[in-house]
Amino acid sequence: MKTLANLATYQQRSNQFLQQAISNLAITDKKLLEAMEYALLIGGKRMRPFLAYTTGEVFGANLEDIDAIAAAIECIHAYSLIHDDLPAMDDDDLRRGKPTCHIAFDEATAILAGDALQTLAFDLLANHPFKAVTSAEQVQLISMLAKASGYQGMCGGQAMDLSATNSRISLEQLEHIHALKTGALLKASMLMALKCTKVEASAYNTCERFAHLIGLAYQVQDDIIDVTSTDEELGKPAGSDVAANKSTYPALLGLQKSKEKADQLYSEALQALDSLPYNTQNLADFATFIVKRVS
Amino acid sequence: MKTLANLATYQQRSNQFLQQAISNLAITDKKLLEAMEYALLIGGKRMRPFLAYTTGEVFGANLEDIDAIAAAIECIHAYSLIHDDLPAMDDDDLRRGKPTCHIAFDEATAILAGDALQTLAFDLLANHPFKAVTSAEQVQLISMLAKASGYQGMCGGQAMDLSATNSRISLEQLEHIHALKTGALLKASMLMALKCTKVEASAYNTCERFAHLIGLAYQVQDDIIDVTSTDEELGKPAGSDVAANKSTYPALLGLQKSKEKADQLYSEALQALDSLPYNTQNLADFATFIVKRVS
Repeated sequence: MKTLANLATYQQRSNQFLQQAISNLAITDKKLLEAMEYALLIGGKRMRPFLAYTTGEVFGANLEDIDAIAAAIECIHAYSLIHDDLPAMDDDDLRRGKPTCHIAFDEATAILAGDALQTLAFDLLANHPFKAVTSAEQVQLISMLAKASGYQGMCGGQAMDLSATNSRISLEQLEHIHALKTGALLKASMLMALKCTKVEASAYNTCERFAHLIGLAYQVQDDIIDVTSTDEELGKPAGSDVAANKSTYPALLGLQKSKEKADQLYSEALQALDSLPYNTQNLADFATFIVKRVS
Repeated sequence: MKTLANLATYQQRSNQFLQQAISNLAITDKKLLEAMEYALLIGGKRMRPFLAYTTGEVFGANLEDIDAIAAAIECIHAYSLIHDDLPAMDDDDLRRGKPTCHIAFDEATAILAGDALQTLAFDLLANHPFKAVTSAEQVQLISMLAKASGYQGMCGGQAMDLSATNSRISLEQLEHIHALKTGALLKASMLMALKCTKVEASAYNTCERFAHLIGLAYQVQDDIIDVTSTDEELGKPAGSDVAANKSTYPALLGLQKSKEKADQLYSEALQALDSLPYNTQNLADFATFIVKRVS
């Protein structure tokens, strides 16, 4: 598989910024800080930071502005994983090949680590010395993150996903769940980065469509990987969606049609990019990376 | 006990604003929204909204600006109660005389309801049409709420409180825990309201001291009430701190010295107010209300 240009660079940049954000916190409870750091920095592909940085790069943002956006989104993502892994939710013991936060620490600490990481996301956005973002735009960024991650976004999608477990839902319902559960934050990674640029409204709307399409493609591919990979490749038990009786694309469409669906979303995403008068190659590569990944 | 002037008025105002905020959410998962509404609107004295409105009233804020501040703080408070009540934390079945959120719904829903209410707090601050607050000040308000509620505030304090359970801590450590766990958000209620006024720095600092003192007094009184009240008066099991082997003021100082401590904090708080060239009677009454309450 083609390596994504700058992936390692942006992973490293995002990790360094997150590490610094954790180090900047005046210590209250040491164990809680360790749990936050563990969940935030133990690994992860940093897809969302990568999308934010690449968007900023393509459309001319100051990447120092993207630092806070990438970090805030990653804090939200990390908090959601901690809470999703809890015994009362998905009850997962492994994440990225390592014990989940409540296994490595304890449940109470994991709940609080998730809570504090969510707060840290908003803290980072509110306290970043933005270069090319006005205070009014900074408020908009905070609003965008809240919409993408709260009841009308990721958190609502997770609840819908739990409600749909053990029941047969339509393809339309499945898409709605994923548009919220994983799509909203991925889309925010792109749109928040665009807020740091002078991009015109039409390009913004095209990017929104691109982000929507790759967000769905990401989830379709995730479902495919869950049934076609080994535990080792995934770093967590493969087939866990089937075991949990979750609605997935392979369950609804079959594996072959799911692959076609991913390919179709991928093509539409590339078409959207092609219409933009910018050099969007790195974003196209990101779409390829998402749909062609095997773990 | 003296009734607090405007308590009912501000309770009602805060509840109406919160109810509207919940109603404004486009529905994703219905059960999650019901759980959020249940936890947010089932009751509660609305001490923090009252302090915010009263501060705004005393120092000349536009109360429509305070609406968002009071609501955001109450969302944070409600989320913290939901998560604190979970089996992995304090494992409480009753809150305000009603089943706690995870009992009325289920654990997964309660975790997500807390998560979504935290997000809603920041959402409300980022989307309020403030009248006398600039965008830069709006960002400051968001930062203040994040600092008060996150790792360096309420959430860190809750972790320290859990860590201190079953161990003997000093009075200084206990005060530090409470300054974060309950004090930070109470203080934010006052200081965020002050950000909506033109009050001079010296008065701001005096208010910060007042808020710190009544925050501590609130917790000392809470500990006293826990050992002197009945289940019915509390709406939850009395003596639960002792049962959980938590460090409390009565445990560290004895009941009599705890009462003296509450009185001393109360006197110092009133002295701080007396130095201000404003009519602070309603704030003094709030201090009285906090220290003289029996439930």
